[in-house]
Amino acid sequence: METVRSVAALRARVHAWRADGHRIALTPTMGALHEGHLGLVALGRAHAERVVASIFVNPTQFGPGEDLAAYPRGEARDSAMLAGAGCDLLFAPPPDEMYPPGFATRVQVEGLTECLCGKARPGHFDGVAQVVTKLLNQAQADVAIFGEKDWQQLAVIRRLAADLDIPTEILGAPIAREADGLAMSSRNRYLDAAQRAVAGQLNQVIFAAADRIAHGAAAGPETAAAADRLLVAGFDAVDYVECRSAEALAPVELFDPSVPARVFAAARLGRARLIDNVPVAPAG
Amino acid sequence: METVRSVAALRARVHAWRADGHRIALTPTMGALHEGHLGLVALGRAHAERVVASIFVNPTQFGPGEDLAAYPRGEARDSAMLAGAGCDLLFAPPPDEMYPPGFATRVQVEGLTECLCGKARPGHFDGVAQVVTKLLNQAQADVAIFGEKDWQQLAVIRRLAADLDIPTEILGAPIAREADGLAMSSRNRYLDAAQRAVAGQLNQVIFAAADRIAHGAAAGPETAAAADRLLVAGFDAVDYVECRSAEALAPVELFDPSVPARVFAAARLGRARLIDNVPVAPAG
Repeated sequence: METVRSVAALRARVHAWRADGHRIALTPTMGALHEGHLGLVALGRAHAERVVASIFVNPTQFGPGEDLAAYPRGEARDSAMLAGAGCDLLFAPPPDEMYPPGFATRVQVEGLTECLCGKARPGHFDGVAQVVTKLLNQAQADVAIFGEKDWQQLAVIRRLAADLDIPTEILGAPIAREADGLAMSSRNRYLDAAQRAVAGQLNQVIFAAADRIAHGAAAGPETAAAADRLLVAGFDAVDYVECRSAEALAPVELFDPSVPARVFAAARLGRARLIDNVPVAPAG
Repeated sequence: METVRSVAALRARVHAWRADGHRIALTPTMGALHEGHLGLVALGRAHAERVVASIFVNPTQFGPGEDLAAYPRGEARDSAMLAGAGCDLLFAPPPDEMYPPGFATRVQVEGLTECLCGKARPGHFDGVAQVVTKLLNQAQADVAIFGEKDWQQLAVIRRLAADLDIPTEILGAPIAREADGLAMSSRNRYLDAAQRAVAGQLNQVIFAAADRIAHGAAAGPETAAAADRLLVAGFDAVDYVECRSAEALAPVELFDPSVPARVFAAARLGRARLIDNVPVAPAG
C-alpha cells in the first residue's frame, strides 16, 4: 500500500486507476484506527476495485476547548492496519497541504448542524463540511464511506454532497460495536478500566429506549428517563438523549413507522465524550 | 447546439466528450448575453475542444432590494448568440434543479468578499460562491471562464476553487468594452440615452486615476478625486473608487510595480449600478 501526502499525487493515482476502468472508494478517517474503520474499508472494497483511505486530524472541526492536541495519532500502526484490510492507497496530507496560507473558504450546512452534537460543539460541523468537501473533491472517488456512529455527520455529508453536486455517492457503514454494545471509537482509548465498564451502558440504555418508543411510548419521557439512567450508571454528564428522524433529524415524539427514526445520545465519561445512535425499529 | 436542463443530462454529455478525449470549457452566465460573453466562449474554445455555456439567473446572489425580478431574460436570443459563437452545449437549469426543497448548504469566502461590492451587496458573494461551486462540480470541466469585469467575483472564485480543491482551472477573460470605454454589461440595458452618454466616463475616469497612481500619485487622493469627477459627470452616486492589489484585494496607497494592482469602481446611474476595473500599469 502506497502512501501519498499531496493532492497532486493522490489525483495522479486515482486518475490512472480510472483510466484502467476501476471504480474508486474513499474512506476518510482521522486515524487512530479500530475495527470499525476496517469495516469502512471492507465496504469500500465491496463497491469499488480500489480503496483509498485518508488520515487527517482536521483542526477546523475541533473547538477551542476540545482534544485536538491530545487526539491519538499513530500513522505506522494505522498504515499497517489499512494495508492488512486491503486498502490500496493511504492519503495522509500535512495540515498545510489542506489549509495553505490564504485559505479562506467555509462550507456550512444549515439546519442539520444545529441540533444534537451541533449544540455542544459549535463550529464542529462547519469544519467537518469544509474538510469533507475538500476530500471528496480531491479524491474524485465513485463512492465515499462514512461510519453510521457519526450519524449526524453522515446526514450533513449527504446533504452537502447533494447540494454542492459532488459526483461521489455517499454510503454509510454500520456501527461496529464491542461485545457489551459500546460503539467502537478512537476516543474509547481515553477510558480507564472503571470507565470502560460503565461505557457499555450508553448503547444498552438507548437501545431499550428506542425499543419502547418503537412500541408506542412517547419519546420525550423515554429519552429523559434514559438520560437519568446514564447518570445513575456512572456517566459524568449527558449532553443529550433525543429521538429524531433519520434523514432530516427532525424531533420525533410519537414514532411513525413510515418515517425512519433513531435515538441519539452523547454523554461524558472522564476525558471522553461518547456518542451513539440506534434505529427505532418498527414493532414486529 | 443542444440545450439541457438537468445536471444528469449535462454530465452525460460531458462524460461522453471526455471519453472521446476532448477537453471541456465551461462559461457560466446569467444570460442577457452581449459581445463580452461571446468572448468568454471564444476563450473557452481556445482552451478546449468543447464549450458548455450555462444560463442561470441565480436568486441567491441578489439581495432583497436588488433587480432579480427585473434582470433581463431571453433564452431564445441568448441561445442563438451562443450557437453562433461556437458553443456546443447550453445548460439552462430551472431554479428547482439548482435549489431543490431541503437545500441547506452555504459556501463563503472570507476576506475577499468584505470589501468593494461586498459592502454594498451583503450576501452577494455568498450566493456567487454557492452557485459557482455547484456549476463547477456539475460540469466537471477542465477550464471555466469568467469575465474580468467582475474582478472581485473572479478573485473569489479562484480562491474557492483552490480552497475546495475543485479540479477545474479558472481563467479570466479580458473586459469587452464599447467604443467609449464602457464595459459591456447586461445591466447597460437599464440606461436611457442620456445616461448612456454619461456611462462611458466611468472607465475614462478610473483609467486616468490608475495612470496617475502608476506614475507615483497617492491612491487615496486620486480615487477620492475620481469619485468627485464621476458625480460631476452625472452619476447619481458612487459606491466606491479604490485602488487594491489584484489578487488579495488589499488596499494600495502607493503603487509597487512588483505587486499587481487595479483601480475598482462602482457607481449608480438611474436603475443601473455599473462596475469597472482597470490595471495600474507600471510606468513605461
